[in-house]
Amino acid sequence: MNLVLVEASEVTPTAEVTLRGGRAAHLRTVLRGVPGQSVRMGIVDGPTGTGVVQHVSPDSVVLACVWGEPPPRPRVDLLLALPRPKVLRRLWAQFAALGVGQVILSNAERVERNYFDTHVLDEADFRPLLLEGLQQARDTHLPRVSVHRQFRVLIEDALDPLTGTARRLVAEPGAAPSIRAALQPLPSYERVLLAVGPEGGWNSFELSLLHAHRFTPVSLGTRTLRSDTACVALLTLVHDAIAVSA
Amino acid sequence: MNLVLVEASEVTPTAEVTLRGGRAAHLRTVLRGVPGQSVRMGIVDGPTGTGVVQHVSPDSVVLACVWGEPPPRPRVDLLLALPRPKVLRRLWAQFAALGVGQVILSNAERVERNYFDTHVLDEADFRPLLLEGLQQARDTHLPRVSVHRQFRVLIEDALDPLTGTARRLVAEPGAAPSIRAALQPLPSYERVLLAVGPEGGWNSFELSLLHAHRFTPVSLGTRTLRSDTACVALLTLVHDAIAVSA
Repeated sequence: MNLVLVEASEVTPTAEVTLRGGRAAHLRTVLRGVPGQSVRMGIVDGPTGTGVVQHVSPDSVVLACVWGEPPPRPRVDLLLALPRPKVLRRLWAQFAALGVGQVILSNAERVERNYFDTHVLDEADFRPLLLEGLQQARDTHLPRVSVHRQFRVLIEDALDPLTGTARRLVAEPGAAPSIRAALQPLPSYERVLLAVGPEGGWNSFELSLLHAHRFTPVSLGTRTLRSDTACVALLTLVHDAIAVSA
Repeated sequence: MNLVLVEASEVTPTAEVTLRGGRAAHLRTVLRGVPGQSVRMGIVDGPTGTGVVQHVSPDSVVLACVWGEPPPRPRVDLLLALPRPKVLRRLWAQFAALGVGQVILSNAERVERNYFDTHVLDEADFRPLLLEGLQQARDTHLPRVSVHRQFRVLIEDALDPLTGTARRLVAEPGAAPSIRAALQPLPSYERVLLAVGPEGGWNSFELSLLHAHRFTPVSLGTRTLRSDTACVALLTLVHDAIAVSA
């Protein structure tokens, strides 16, 4: 844990935070927190700052906090065909750690219907994994998550309100331009929405619909990757391209 | 399985291959193999090619193969501080899929000693995972793996014979140049050796020794990633930089 994340409701008007449970145990044991020690803190969807340990008891740690600025919001959103539950479970923390503003999970022909029934889609299940990734990467921006069972309704109706004018890319096998080439130049106010298909790819109807709705093909690379590896690789390349274009 | 990998010893002088067990079952059920059907094939550390199904029986599939050229050998080698067994288990297939010529696993101060006792380091355990990654990415080059319990001996004595004149990079937090900047230009005959430290980083002695042995610092990026995510992200950026420099 490189940052201790708390909810805004846990901060008192005098900027004190009392941790209990797992976070208190982590502070006492892993970070060896003693009174006077400083700890990097953050408020979910808010600023980062510093907490100075005031009291340590067997079941709680009290910190006095000073808050600074919120970190910049990740400029990438991800539209992902719903992967197998086992794969998605591995991805949640990595999404938050790599930096994703929104995770838009979608149906597709090659998504099995029973993937939608998993508890990996319950906020109670994935929120702790997202928080784990934010604490790893010292971010506070909790990715917003939405699940869409109708691909066409998502692309035709829901996407504009969700993502507005973001630059839209769809990763495809074959000779599409690289992500970097497609994002040069990218004005600093502009966001990127990256679409990643299911194992086996989007079908031709889905690809046509994406193209008709401003998604530009970018190269998936020459090697076919498992969808979790592909997500990490593609998000890395988008972040890298945004950094270069800055 | 995007490629069916076989050992050279499985190919008869008349270029026939008889598959049994898991690969035969995969061909029969997932790929719905029937006589006359073509399947992408590869020989471990050898060429790729095409197999045409000759016979299908309940416990075997016989293919007649035509072999082409070997795919290019991945130009990246990885020197990695031995991660936790659970993390390493997740990484094997991803290494092979992303493309790594050699995986050089090393001790470091922040590597726990018991990590070396795991069966995840047994070839019998990791080889099937590497093959899985190769079959996913349609490669045949099995990453060579070596395990080094003495960091200093590795860097001072073992590394030159293992990796020769490769361009050496070490990923570090802070203001180092990007991987792409560090690899521009990269002559097409030159390989890259990327060093990735343990959770918590290399200690200062380890970093000095790496710098003294031609490892140039490159940026780990602004976000602190878990070591499996970091490996995938960094290997992606090295491959991307090599492709750009080509």
